Amino acid sequence: MADTNTCPPLTRASVLAAHALIKSYIHETPVLTNTTLDTLASTPRTAAELKGTEWDLEVTGKQPARPKIRFWFKCENYQRIGAFKARGLFMLLNGLKRRWKWRSNHAQALALAARENGIPAHIVMPTISAPPKIAATKGYGANVIFSGSTSTEREAVTKEVIEKTGARFVPPYDHPDIILGQATAALELQSQISSALSSSKSSPKRRLNAVITPCGGGGLLSGTALACSDPAAQGGPILVFGAEPSFSGADDGRRGYYSGQRVETVKSLTIADGLRTPVGKYPWSIIYEKKLVAGMYSVGEEEIKKALKLVYERMKVVVEPSAVVGLAVALFNEEFRSMVERDAGEEGWDLGVVFSGGNVELAALGRLFAEE
Amino acid sequence: MADTNTCPPLTRASVLAAHALIKSYIHETPVLTNTTLDTLASTPRTAAELKGTEWDLEVTGKQPARPKIRFWFKCENYQRIGAFKARGLFMLLNGLKRRWKWRSNHAQALALAARENGIPAHIVMPTISAPPKIAATKGYGANVIFSGSTSTEREAVTKEVIEKTGARFVPPYDHPDIILGQATAALELQSQISSALSSSKSSPKRRLNAVITPCGGGGLLSGTALACSDPAAQGGPILVFGAEPSFSGADDGRRGYYSGQRVETVKSLTIADGLRTPVGKYPWSIIYEKKLVAGMYSVGEEEIKKALKLVYERMKVVVEPSAVVGLAVALFNEEFRSMVERDAGEEGWDLGVVFSGGNVELAALGRLFAEE
Repeated sequence: MADTNTCPPLTRASVLAAHALIKSYIHETPVLTNTTLDTLASTPRTAAELKGTEWDLEVTGKQPARPKIRFWFKCENYQRIGAFKARGLFMLLNGLKRRWKWRSNHAQALALAARENGIPAHIVMPTISAPPKIAATKGYGANVIFSGSTSTEREAVTKEVIEKTGARFVPPYDHPDIILGQATAALELQSQISSALSSSKSSPKRRLNAVITPCGGGGLLSGTALACSDPAAQGGPILVFGAEPSFSGADDGRRGYYSGQRVETVKSLTIADGLRTPVGKYPWSIIYEKKLVAGMYSVGEEEIKKALKLVYERMKVVVEPSAVVGLAVALFNEEFRSMVERDAGEEGWDLGVVFSGGNVELAALGRLFAEE
Repeated sequence: MADTNTCPPLTRASVLAAHALIKSYIHETPVLTNTTLDTLASTPRTAAELKGTEWDLEVTGKQPARPKIRFWFKCENYQRIGAFKARGLFMLLNGLKRRWKWRSNHAQALALAARENGIPAHIVMPTISAPPKIAATKGYGANVIFSGSTSTEREAVTKEVIEKTGARFVPPYDHPDIILGQATAALELQSQISSALSSSKSSPKRRLNAVITPCGGGGLLSGTALACSDPAAQGGPILVFGAEPSFSGADDGRRGYYSGQRVETVKSLTIADGLRTPVGKYPWSIIYEKKLVAGMYSVGEEEIKKALKLVYERMKVVVEPSAVVGLAVALFNEEFRSMVERDAGEEGWDLGVVFSGGNVELAALGRLFAEE
């Protein structure tokens, strides 16, 4: 495990410093807007759409929510290695320049960051990993070692590799440097939206009001919360929300947040496969203990698929299922939508949505949609 | 049919005028680059890859081509209605402000252009059209009338609508205004590449050397050729090439170009469904008679699928199969690649590739890739 004693404090100022350190290694990813999706989000859902869901109007006796939402999509699917994770790993490796060893899902990011820092990387990946991920990881020059897909099997192989090579373990999200690196996406988003608004003819009062990100291990969400934690420095308050799949308990972050107790294990096969992990300790300290996240929301598998289809067909952008969970919440979760209606009122919100990644295998995507 | 007597002459100067007319209605679409695809295009294909193809090294006795290619992708999939066709129809309707009637594949573009010009639109679409295209066309306020999928069936319904409503017929590509409108994409590409190169540290000699576009009816290809037809005004010569599917005769443009006789009918079910039409008369006059196109190339269905997969998985961009035929030629057609090696030499080419559109139905795409 990484030595955390020498890490900078978890503040927005540290996020700025992290950005200065890593910005020559990462892309400033584009921010997209989409009128069709704004209209959809700002249109009340019908009784028919809500029928049979937990927000069935006949059951709740409520009216559908009428939020006004203008989306700003931060496209980390266009980040190097196709996901925000490059940010955290460049921060970790760039800051410490030591030898690391790391496993699992962030394989491509680690392989790339290690290569550019001249550090050998050994990567333990489950044999069932998507072939393009394996190919890309090898392409960046990493030594790929295969294991079974359960955490027990992976950890056994990882232990063996560490013993044999003297490599060090690199955590995928539960480390302050990783959080500071992931935080840089929201920092860019703030300045990109503020330039876009200042060069347009829109109302001078408009600014980024809130950001919603997917929450798996919590690195991206907690980093985003840090980047938005200083109203004076960032030109006003920015609320941060987390989004999770509800399928078979993948909403561990939401359950933990509202019960006051971090959920430590998750066993869900949600299609949002990047969000199957429990929230880590460092992210939890920011999300819950420091209360830098204003709320956690979840959506079902069908809602994630609907959002995915909209992003492909209307925005023409390739994202992985995990990436659209925030958008699915904004479009389909009545609890979130009522909150926006109440807090944002007639003026509505400029809402940042982080598309976390785009590493999807076309064949898997094909199977997901071919039946329809 | 539209009255062509009052149309401007088919020159690059007219393209500039067309751009000034329509630019407030259309998007300046982004231009993307991609290091992975540059490397792939600049790596000789192996004997194994070429085995069994028409470029099998054992059969031809040749060495694989060694071109150097730097791609610039002009993303018309991000154009309004998801394809370059918005350009031509805005030009046609904006210029003439008369009543039109039109059929077939450009339905969404016509519906949108008609709405924004306050002109009622009746659109005849085959019942087998992709549901999102039908929905989007209706969404823009057009009156959609269904017909069978053969041209005879469509024309019968179209005739009936014209008789009943007094509407006028809008051609999808065979009209000077349409060509001038489509040409504006290449005009933007020229200035976007020249700004990108001047703000980077690249060699001062670098400039756009050539452009390759898909060729269906030929509107995009001939427009691109016009936009690149004035070396003095555009800072040097820019070669223009057309790309077609070879499957069951869809390479009508290529066959016509090399035989000197326009092919007037095509009956192909290539997956590049936007390229199933024969080249029209006006496009032909530019492509062949004025010799403004430097060459025509074709690729097979598997090569189109491979290029599509690369664009989704490596660029994270949603395109329709027709859109990637130019890229497939640059990556896989040895004839094209040898020509680049010969003409571009050690310095290589900066090659513009027009991604023509992104209107793909996720379910259809799913079926295409689910089997793999």
